[in-house]
Amino acid sequence: MAPIVDIHTHVYPPKYMDLLRSRTTVPYVRNFPDAPDSSRLIILPGEDDPSMPSTSRGRPIGSEYFDIKEKIAFMDQHKIDKSVISLANPWLDFLPAEEAGQKAIEINDDVNEQCGLYPGRLYFFGTLPLSADADTIVKEIERLSTLKYARGVILGTSGLGSGLDDPALDPVYAALSKHNQLIFLHPHYGLPNSVYGPRVGDYGHVLHLAMGFPLETTIAVTRMLLSGVWDRHTGLNVLLAHSGGTLPFLAGRIESCILHDGHLKAHGKTQNRRDVWDILKTNIYLDAVIYSEVGLNAAVEASGADRLLFGTDHPFFPPLEEDAKEWHSVNANYGAISKAFANSDEKAQGVLGGNAVRILRLED
Amino acid sequence: MAPIVDIHTHVYPPKYMDLLRSRTTVPYVRNFPDAPDSSRLIILPGEDDPSMPSTSRGRPIGSEYFDIKEKIAFMDQHKIDKSVISLANPWLDFLPAEEAGQKAIEINDDVNEQCGLYPGRLYFFGTLPLSADADTIVKEIERLSTLKYARGVILGTSGLGSGLDDPALDPVYAALSKHNQLIFLHPHYGLPNSVYGPRVGDYGHVLHLAMGFPLETTIAVTRMLLSGVWDRHTGLNVLLAHSGGTLPFLAGRIESCILHDGHLKAHGKTQNRRDVWDILKTNIYLDAVIYSEVGLNAAVEASGADRLLFGTDHPFFPPLEEDAKEWHSVNANYGAISKAFANSDEKAQGVLGGNAVRILRLED
Repeated sequence: MAPIVDIHTHVYPPKYMDLLRSRTTVPYVRNFPDAPDSSRLIILPGEDDPSMPSTSRGRPIGSEYFDIKEKIAFMDQHKIDKSVISLANPWLDFLPAEEAGQKAIEINDDVNEQCGLYPGRLYFFGTLPLSADADTIVKEIERLSTLKYARGVILGTSGLGSGLDDPALDPVYAALSKHNQLIFLHPHYGLPNSVYGPRVGDYGHVLHLAMGFPLETTIAVTRMLLSGVWDRHTGLNVLLAHSGGTLPFLAGRIESCILHDGHLKAHGKTQNRRDVWDILKTNIYLDAVIYSEVGLNAAVEASGADRLLFGTDHPFFPPLEEDAKEWHSVNANYGAISKAFANSDEKAQGVLGGNAVRILRLED
Repeated sequence: MAPIVDIHTHVYPPKYMDLLRSRTTVPYVRNFPDAPDSSRLIILPGEDDPSMPSTSRGRPIGSEYFDIKEKIAFMDQHKIDKSVISLANPWLDFLPAEEAGQKAIEINDDVNEQCGLYPGRLYFFGTLPLSADADTIVKEIERLSTLKYARGVILGTSGLGSGLDDPALDPVYAALSKHNQLIFLHPHYGLPNSVYGPRVGDYGHVLHLAMGFPLETTIAVTRMLLSGVWDRHTGLNVLLAHSGGTLPFLAGRIESCILHDGHLKAHGKTQNRRDVWDILKTNIYLDAVIYSEVGLNAAVEASGADRLLFGTDHPFFPPLEEDAKEWHSVNANYGAISKAFANSDEKAQGVLGGNAVRILRLED
């Protein structure tokens, strides 16, 4: 019986909470005068817009975000043996260049230490100082590879500021490949509010989270593909949040659009390249945070059951009922796995944890 | 043996070509001085931006866009028995209110007449004067229901200007339901260029067409869902282009985001509503223009094999090789259907044409 491993589970370690509490522009944590005992986390771009009352106070933030004991309690409650924790968005993307390097060191050490409190149960994806120069980033990758519980890095879609198709990231991708550290690619920036129309305020966070997040991921990974990142870095491994955003579903259309593009053809870019299906089965891993059997099946067909990894997105998407013990969001993903693999306990166990143990070397 | 029916196939009838040729802002058709014999179609928002040389001249446009004989030749070449043709984007969305009503009448009559030239082979989705007032639109819906070959309407995502979640569309939805005319929902506006990053010019049309189009469709249909369109119009049927954009894959996440949204819960909107799976299996049809077995399987699982309809997107996505007889884009969709239904000829025939004959009443 393989252990159950959660590879999509976030923390804001104490040093990061201090940072958020010290700020007054997004991202930040604050208490409002009319509710002094309840802290609110405001992280999404433009989220504190007072003209959007349904989202302008972000979300409640309690100790489940920063107290590692609560992470362990959540794991116990949901039968999770091991978690690979990662700093939640927006990571250090917003820091001035001169602060980022030192802050990354502090936070990675902080998280590594917390993992050490529960040996065998906690590992982590490190945070990179992306607003610093490539040298500083590469140094932190090398340092991370010496930290006992680090198993890769979590990355947003902005890269050094202009996306993951930026050629200036080549030394970063080379260092990650060299040290066999995968990227956990996670959305944060979503799409501009304008695409949701004038009634977006009626819909709470739904359009931002259900559309903006997965679409951001899909665009980011497609830009990587089109810019030839995997032609240059054939060993670069990327774990995509939310089962790839929408990549498994759109892969056929992406490939067809490439093959039918006059501009790409004129520049010799429709041939002699690794196609999206090759990347999906060789360089990409997908989490299983998709909340439906339909989506999960598509992810399996696109990448293979041996490349899918269970996750929860904890502490986001908590149950809205105060007295709920188990999280619906977690059970939705458990349920999808159980239905999709009703005929193969081996594959189910792989997705639930066996794949993570193998891919992320969690044997210790 | 059911006939093969293409329900996603576009035309610019002669009256619409005259309109495009008379214009100097997007959308328009023009010949450039350095290539006077080759017309170019420039339709996408911002597509004529001279700073984006890879897309600023749109695409070549030849008689396959407006000569109905070429549509029939394409059908014969690809073994298509019947086509339900529709005006291509951006339809009449850009017309001044006072011109739209009359232009819709002219174009719908034009297309209906062309269908009459090939009885039993051509039907059409009509065009609505969406920039006019609701009364004018409803009148055209009623008039369309008297035209011999009309079988519904094609609609972009902008509605009356602020999206398909606009309550002012209620009379339009009511009229469509009453006359049993389905909406063929098709993207055009995509996403703002900013979301593709600074290197978008390197990638031709790929990001706009492979990402922007399906994401636009998904956002539009999710806004309809969230605004309760199908709670008010339980009989409104919508055929989604490109297998729903990404709806089948994201349906689980949409449902989870609704159930976990504090704002929606506070307003009683998480309960007593028709959920996305119900809508997918009751009100939504999906075309099979998805270019992969993975995507097609997800569409089938989400809506059912009896709700999927074959399409080609002709005359878009032609082969880039001058001497190609068969279209790769068409064969990709044929191939996906043949693989997905390798074990059920009955289902394959339904998707290839039987479903369209039944749903769109193509028996005559």
